[in-house]
Amino acid sequence: MQTSLILANVSKHIDLQADESDFFLSLLKEKRVKRKQHLLRENDVCLQSVFVNTGCLRGYTLDKNGYEHILQFAPPGWWIADMYSMLTRQPGELFIEALEDTEVLLLHIDDRDRLMREVPKFERFFRIIIENSLITFRQRLMENLGLPARDRYLLFCKRYPTLIERLPQKQIAAYIGVTPEFLSKMRAEMLRAR
Amino acid sequence: MQTSLILANVSKHIDLQADESDFFLSLLKEKRVKRKQHLLRENDVCLQSVFVNTGCLRGYTLDKNGYEHILQFAPPGWWIADMYSMLTRQPGELFIEALEDTEVLLLHIDDRDRLMREVPKFERFFRIIIENSLITFRQRLMENLGLPARDRYLLFCKRYPTLIERLPQKQIAAYIGVTPEFLSKMRAEMLRAR
Repeated sequence: MQTSLILANVSKHIDLQADESDFFLSLLKEKRVKRKQHLLRENDVCLQSVFVNTGCLRGYTLDKNGYEHILQFAPPGWWIADMYSMLTRQPGELFIEALEDTEVLLLHIDDRDRLMREVPKFERFFRIIIENSLITFRQRLMENLGLPARDRYLLFCKRYPTLIERLPQKQIAAYIGVTPEFLSKMRAEMLRAR
Repeated sequence: MQTSLILANVSKHIDLQADESDFFLSLLKEKRVKRKQHLLRENDVCLQSVFVNTGCLRGYTLDKNGYEHILQFAPPGWWIADMYSMLTRQPGELFIEALEDTEVLLLHIDDRDRLMREVPKFERFFRIIIENSLITFRQRLMENLGLPARDRYLLFCKRYPTLIERLPQKQIAAYIGVTPEFLSKMRAEMLRAR
């Protein structure tokens, strides 16, 4: 099991003793997901927090017209889950799909609760992780409410610098809410304007 | 200082000893805000978490065209803050305005950090509060991306049952993103369809 990335992620926020770190790692399960395979589908109850080791996931929903809305990407070092479904234990709306062959670590909600009970400093870790998600969702909401496409694109670039060259154009276009053709035209204009 | 509501809010999630509860209350500041007065404006750095004792606040932003977007209401028992600004210590986008004469308790970000350091179980409290905000923002994002006005209105009613009769129609209309006339027509149709 590749654990260096997740331990680095945790140690950004809390310091673990060797036994705490061993206990944490003992709760994780490794999983490989093939490109285009789903880890979660609409109406599933989301029971796992997913940490990406290699590859890339995307979280999206389908609206009533069958149109996809991408909520977030998860490149290596990111967490992804349907927090709404996980915390309410209700069927969720989120699809989580691999954009490339991806290796993840899974932490079950019951194990997350147990971890926080037995190693209370993980309360701090998950508080900070969730604060960061909240900031991202708040920004994403504001983008959709008020920002022009160019600014939405610039925010995408800032949020996911490693994905700009790596993701298919159509995924980026779907995330910022424009057609791939419009994105391509906008990118060309932005390059010319430099 | 009216402390029963905030203590009830905290004790929903954690159990406090008398000295912990005294320490928590010693960090709070009471403030009265008149109707239409602002607690926070765009470009302020948000340094306080606001807990509503009586009255009602609303959090909104202005887009480039001067159009208001209401992110949330805060009736009694709710917390409100520009979390993005608070956590990044950058100037924010949120306005927080009183919709009626309102009494709040303020908790400064530095005192919040001190509280979590000295009484670590508050890590748990704020984790849960933030998880709940995250769920609300996630839903709000989904509403704006994919839901018809009728469903957005039903979600408003579920989220803020105490505000349905209390808020001016135009505030509810702005929150769900329709004109007051459309809201009024929709409400009438929903009553007829019962």
